[in-house]
Amino acid sequence: MELVEIARVEYSLQEIASAVTAEVIGDRDMVISGVAGLETAETGDLVFAESPRFLDSALRSRASAILLTTELAAGARAGLKSLLVVLQPRLAFVQVLRLFAPIQHRPPGIHESARIGDNVRLGVGVHIGPNVIVEADSVIDDGVVLLAGVIVGEGCAVGAGTVVHSNVVLYPGVTLGRACIVHAGSVIGADGFGYVPIGNGLMKVPHLGAVEIGDEVEIGANTCIDRAKTGVTRIGSGTKIDNLVHIAHNVTVGQACLIIAQVGVAGTVTIGNGVILGGQAGIKDHVSLGDGARVGAQGGVIGDVAPGTTVSGYPARPHQDKMRELGSLTALPDALKRMRAMEKRLAVLEAALQARRSEDDASGDPAEPIGTEGAERAG
Amino acid sequence: MELVEIARVEYSLQEIASAVTAEVIGDRDMVISGVAGLETAETGDLVFAESPRFLDSALRSRASAILLTTELAAGARAGLKSLLVVLQPRLAFVQVLRLFAPIQHRPPGIHESARIGDNVRLGVGVHIGPNVIVEADSVIDDGVVLLAGVIVGEGCAVGAGTVVHSNVVLYPGVTLGRACIVHAGSVIGADGFGYVPIGNGLMKVPHLGAVEIGDEVEIGANTCIDRAKTGVTRIGSGTKIDNLVHIAHNVTVGQACLIIAQVGVAGTVTIGNGVILGGQAGIKDHVSLGDGARVGAQGGVIGDVAPGTTVSGYPARPHQDKMRELGSLTALPDALKRMRAMEKRLAVLEAALQARRSEDDASGDPAEPIGTEGAERAG
Amino acid sequence: MELVEIARVEYSLQEIASAVTAEVIGDRDMVISGVAGLETAETGDLVFAESPRFLDSALRSRASAILLTTELAAGARAGLKSLLVVLQPRLAFVQVLRLFAPIQHRPPGIHESARIGDNVRLGVGVHIGPNVIVEADSVIDDGVVLLAGVIVGEGCAVGAGTVVHSNVVLYPGVTLGRACIVHAGSVIGADGFGYVPIGNGLMKVPHLGAVEIGDEVEIGANTCIDRAKTGVTRIGSGTKIDNLVHIAHNVTVGQACLIIAQVGVAGTVTIGNGVILGGQAGIKDHVSLGDGARVGAQGGVIGDVAPGTTVSGYPARPHQDKMRELGSLTALPDALKRMRAMEKRLAVLEAALQARRSEDDASGDPAEPIGTEGAERAG
Repeated sequence: MELVEIARVEYSLQEIASAVTAEVIGDRDMVISGVAGLETAETGDLVFAESPRFLDSALRSRASAILLTTELAAGARAGLKSLLVVLQPRLAFVQVLRLFAPIQHRPPGIHESARIGDNVRLGVGVHIGPNVIVEADSVIDDGVVLLAGVIVGEGCAVGAGTVVHSNVVLYPGVTLGRACIVHAGSVIGADGFGYVPIGNGLMKVPHLGAVEIGDEVEIGANTCIDRAKTGVTRIGSGTKIDNLVHIAHNVTVGQACLIIAQVGVAGTVTIGNGVILGGQAGIKDHVSLGDGARVGAQGGVIGDVAPGTTVSGYPARPHQDKMRELGSLTALPDALKRMRAMEKRLAVLEAALQARRSEDDASGDPAEPIGTEGAERAG
Repeated sequence: MELVEIARVEYSLQEIASAVTAEVIGDRDMVISGVAGLETAETGDLVFAESPRFLDSALRSRASAILLTTELAAGARAGLKSLLVVLQPRLAFVQVLRLFAPIQHRPPGIHESARIGDNVRLGVGVHIGPNVIVEADSVIDDGVVLLAGVIVGEGCAVGAGTVVHSNVVLYPGVTLGRACIVHAGSVIGADGFGYVPIGNGLMKVPHLGAVEIGDEVEIGANTCIDRAKTGVTRIGSGTKIDNLVHIAHNVTVGQACLIIAQVGVAGTVTIGNGVILGGQAGIKDHVSLGDGARVGAQGGVIGDVAPGTTVSGYPARPHQDKMRELGSLTALPDALKRMRAMEKRLAVLEAALQARRSEDDASGDPAEPIGTEGAERAG
Repeated sequence: MELVEIARVEYSLQEIASAVTAEVIGDRDMVISGVAGLETAETGDLVFAESPRFLDSALRSRASAILLTTELAAGARAGLKSLLVVLQPRLAFVQVLRLFAPIQHRPPGIHESARIGDNVRLGVGVHIGPNVIVEADSVIDDGVVLLAGVIVGEGCAVGAGTVVHSNVVLYPGVTLGRACIVHAGSVIGADGFGYVPIGNGLMKVPHLGAVEIGDEVEIGANTCIDRAKTGVTRIGSGTKIDNLVHIAHNVTVGQACLIIAQVGVAGTVTIGNGVILGGQAGIKDHVSLGDGARVGAQGGVIGDVAPGTTVSGYPARPHQDKMRELGSLTALPDALKRMRAMEKRLAVLEAALQARRSEDDASGDPAEPIGTEGAERAG
């Protein structure tokens, strides 16, 4: 079958080298079964290194082969990993990714069971699957794929080449950029969570704002991104969001961020570019995270995080400090025992010295109790 | 367009004053873009104050204007915020909310693709969207809106004026009260999580109970509320539940609670009225939370919480204590070092005093080591 | 109605005894409203005990009656609970479970609105509900139930007797074993979360692997299980997964595990047999958990867990230790105060002894400051 020849699960290193015009240093017959980032690479993976620091990590990773430039290859200790040497590593790596990419063989066309509302603008080459609903006044741009059961509310816009998986719900007025992927079951544009207590009740605050998702954003399965109260909840281009994430109303997320599964971001949080939020982390409302900030898994952020800073724990603090604190906690039960012992030893010493002083006192010195002064001051 | 005149995104303060018969103290031309609670208010928001304490918070909030009574207005320091003075502030605030509320312009009618089972009772003015399934013996009361793809299982009841968003699934036997809102993708009535270990396997425990949701309850997107094993999983009227929340079997939640995103409530938990559960908090099975209890974000509650108490952290403890403990943790690594130093200083002192005693001893006193007695007892 | 006679919500203990050929010791008229595990049993429940240890727990549980063997019954203190005595307790307990099991009265047949793709193999007695999509080349085995709105991607396999609830999405190439239950809104087979940073951007890593779910697996509502990058994400037979759980790419879960609501398992984690993950727990990528390991609710596991070990907290540590550490934390704020007091008392003592030494010194002894030596070494 032709499709199988275009995208395969395995290639020899030599086959890849031929496809991207690279030179192999090492094992030409080695089987490469995928590409990966440096931290998640497994045996069989090809990884990408574009600087000495990344080469270092690549050499220590589980990967089988490294794609890199002639210059970097010169410095790499031969024999540790097989090398794929190219002139333009970024271009070559994207070509390799394409070798492994699954075929999107959704033919253009609108399934007979789909319902397209009034005044919807459909681009060229659009695929609309069974039971899809596109409500009035929406724009579905060229090459968009809406899979079975997707619901696009009134006045939405879906950018060219974006793929929306089954049963995703876009509430009215949501904008998705170009080349996005939204996985099954996600809900974009539900009302933010806002109420005003009046007497014993809670009155709902109207949420009239929008959601705007940039280009090349990927959103995992069953993730929720709420509409703004007024204004816009905004996800920057190139940002990737995992499964079961909650993004509240009026949040702004920058570009090329990684938001890992089950993260919760409360209302009106501002997140810079290139930020990484670890799995199950939570960000308090109104907090700001600077460019390149990182939050460890399960971290609970209750104050602003400076650019480039890594924090973790609850309440989140600089990661190194937090790990030292949590490490020291293991010594605490024993330390408390030793402290009680020391207090007794101190009392014994104080009594002993007091006794000596009293002896001296008998010979005329002024008597003051020893040691209590500091204790009183501290208490 | 008429619709636009009924609900707008912005009004001048004078326009609002005219609509609710209020007096303006301050800037009549100020643009008001929404209403908000005191804690989440932003510039452009109108907030509500019905007591001196709330007025205080309102004056310190980010809000631009405050709706209040003549009495309270008399005490407010002029000039800080613009004031909207009314006789009946609760009534007026609800009127203002309505000015901003989005139009629900779903016309009554049943889409041709919807499937209505046998013996379903449909009220007046019901809207049933495309691909909706309503199974046998269900009751859909007056003015209910079931949006595209909603599935209502056998024998459910949906109260008057309730809106169920797309792709929500109600399992058989679920009851929703009046004027509820259920956001897209939520699942109500799935089996509780219960198994009996038999040998190396796990036998499923049948879940034959129901779910009953009160009136004016709002349920966020992709939230799950499980049916009871026997009896009822119950959510009280006026309670608001955010996105991606898990409510297990046989839980009872009181009235007017706020359950924020990604909270997990385990089986047979009892929650009073007016309780607030912060984002990502977890409540252990069989625990009780009294009226007005609050759990901080990410808190892990493993024991009962008294009425009106605020707890946080894991295991959850009174919030002030927990914050002091977590604060003191930052001092622990250094404290452990100082403690080791003190132990050495103590040993030096003990040795010195011992040496002196020994000198005395040489002159006939009974010799006992100093300081070890307390240490032994403590160890 | 006949159906009602087959499955009821309540039976007298004598009725149950007759149905499973058991002898009653105790109250024959007692109303039994369900079966339960020992830890979650309530009044009205029947529980199961097959060893003295389990009998002990059963006697202490909230259950009203215990199903057990003649031998165990002999040792049980009469009168505490009613006993149902049988020869083969496992067989009898399964028979009792069936008495309470809800009727699956879905008649075989394919709804007219369902869409079945080319080359789909349908078994005998299959029920396919309205708006279900089964894409090409899938196998739907005997007795499978696919409820309204389920979407089965290309090349999936669903084993005999499996029930898939409404709006579940199976991406292409997912395999479900026999007698599984998948609750509404779950998504199986979405792409894993993997990207390669290139310059300021993030390139998507293709996910070409599969998901294989064993037999008798139950998956809760709105849970997500991602496909592997290459290879397989695997859930072992008999494992039960609760609502809103995230299982990342390339995870392997063993048999008969319990994964409670909102747990997150990161990429390439390996979990043994009989493992229990408490609610909201998180497991770091590449970690291994041995057979029978347990992770407490909200635990954050960042390193391997040995078989049979129970860990909790973040970072997760042996549960007893962790609880002692967290308990000792409550004493820390006070301990720090007392420590500062002790430092002052020490300084006072050192000064006093120093003063005495200086007196002695005046009579010729070598003068060395007391106590600083240890402090310096420790600093």
